[in-house]
Amino acid sequence: MPSEADGGITLIPIRGMGEVHPGDDLVDLLVAALSSPGLELRDGDVVVVTQKVVSKAEGRLVAIDTADPAAKAALVESESVRILRRRGELVISETKHGFICANAGVDLSNVASGQAALLPLDSDRSARGIVDGLRGRMGIEVGVIISDTFGRTWRRGVTDVAIGCAGVAAVVDLRGTEDAGGRELQATEVCVADELASAAELVMGKDRNVPAAVVRGVPSSWLRRASVADEIVRPPSEDLFR
Amino acid sequence: MPSEADGGITLIPIRGMGEVHPGDDLVDLLVAALSSPGLELRDGDVVVVTQKVVSKAEGRLVAIDTADPAAKAALVESESVRILRRRGELVISETKHGFICANAGVDLSNVASGQAALLPLDSDRSARGIVDGLRGRMGIEVGVIISDTFGRTWRRGVTDVAIGCAGVAAVVDLRGTEDAGGRELQATEVCVADELASAAELVMGKDRNVPAAVVRGVPSSWLRRASVADEIVRPPSEDLFR
Repeated sequence: MPSEADGGITLIPIRGMGEVHPGDDLVDLLVAALSSPGLELRDGDVVVVTQKVVSKAEGRLVAIDTADPAAKAALVESESVRILRRRGELVISETKHGFICANAGVDLSNVASGQAALLPLDSDRSARGIVDGLRGRMGIEVGVIISDTFGRTWRRGVTDVAIGCAGVAAVVDLRGTEDAGGRELQATEVCVADELASAAELVMGKDRNVPAAVVRGVPSSWLRRASVADEIVRPPSEDLFR
Repeated sequence: MPSEADGGITLIPIRGMGEVHPGDDLVDLLVAALSSPGLELRDGDVVVVTQKVVSKAEGRLVAIDTADPAAKAALVESESVRILRRRGELVISETKHGFICANAGVDLSNVASGQAALLPLDSDRSARGIVDGLRGRMGIEVGVIISDTFGRTWRRGVTDVAIGCAGVAAVVDLRGTEDAGGRELQATEVCVADELASAAELVMGKDRNVPAAVVRGVPSSWLRRASVADEIVRPPSEDLFR
């Protein structure tokens, strides 16, 4: 069977983390879940963790009357620095982090009734904490991506993207390298962090209660210091659609 | 090692397809490349093929003076039905297929000097042709995605998305299913075709001349009749940013 040694990549769901509560240590939960036979984490793996469990562990939960649309609207406004579009209850806004997404990332699914989950204050920092924790606890060096589910302007359906990363590149710059025909490549800053988040989502799935996955076999050159805030968030000066 | 039987997914690059020319049969090239030991295609695999080789095989190449920006601009306009934004040489436009992307998908990289590659006329049809061809030649039933590399409005870096599919879902609708806490999920039409395209890109890479990949282990419920045009392309009536 093809393996990572042949240039392949394996996506492995991390099961059994259980329900996450404010104050829980995600590194503890990951270490316990990763102790299953055959699932030993390795140097160079990338661990993708969904925003929802990061927000829960970090206590980014607020009480809300979920039956009251005005309450959610007020919360979305308070999490936004700029509203781009509204349609019915849907708000597309820019968050304090510079993300542009639906409802400022405020989420009522997969949290306790009467609560909403907010985005982590700094998902790059959250990712660094998990990298450091796994190094300290297991003696291994991995990359970590915090993922969330965003819509897209002109395409139906949501996909998972990276809202934080550490130890793995956000954007890999292939500009100036030659294509197979020797011509210089155009427009080839590839957002591998978003592709890794999307790939991991394929084995997590919203309805299966798998909040994390391992991506095994990524090129070692991608494993470096990195940040979603610095590499992916597009400043307004570059932006054609704000 | 974790496998597809545990809910994992494996991404396998398809190497050795060689340079593709107008009139080449991509099914022939795939069958030959897939004959390597250990790489036998299986029922339920998803084969992701990049737009570039589909366009070449289908003869979607035009002569162009690549040193002349006006020539490329004219070609981009002729491939567009609507221009959304311009900045310098960059044009964001809507193609005849309803895709909104940079330069109407006109691509000068990885094609012969003096040529540009245009998008396939109907990538869903291209995908169906490969599904049918692989069934006829190998007796197996796979899904096929045609992928291309698009930018995003508010995030730096490009990612691969699906511009055509057959035999595998474009969007999987989880609306109305319950989350792990028993609450109905919101906004969960997941664009698995785009996530599969992004995942495959991780093992293809722009500079490594790997134009296709196998995704092994996708849920069998995703393997069905599908179309990017019908499921992913967002009609202007739904659109907040056109």
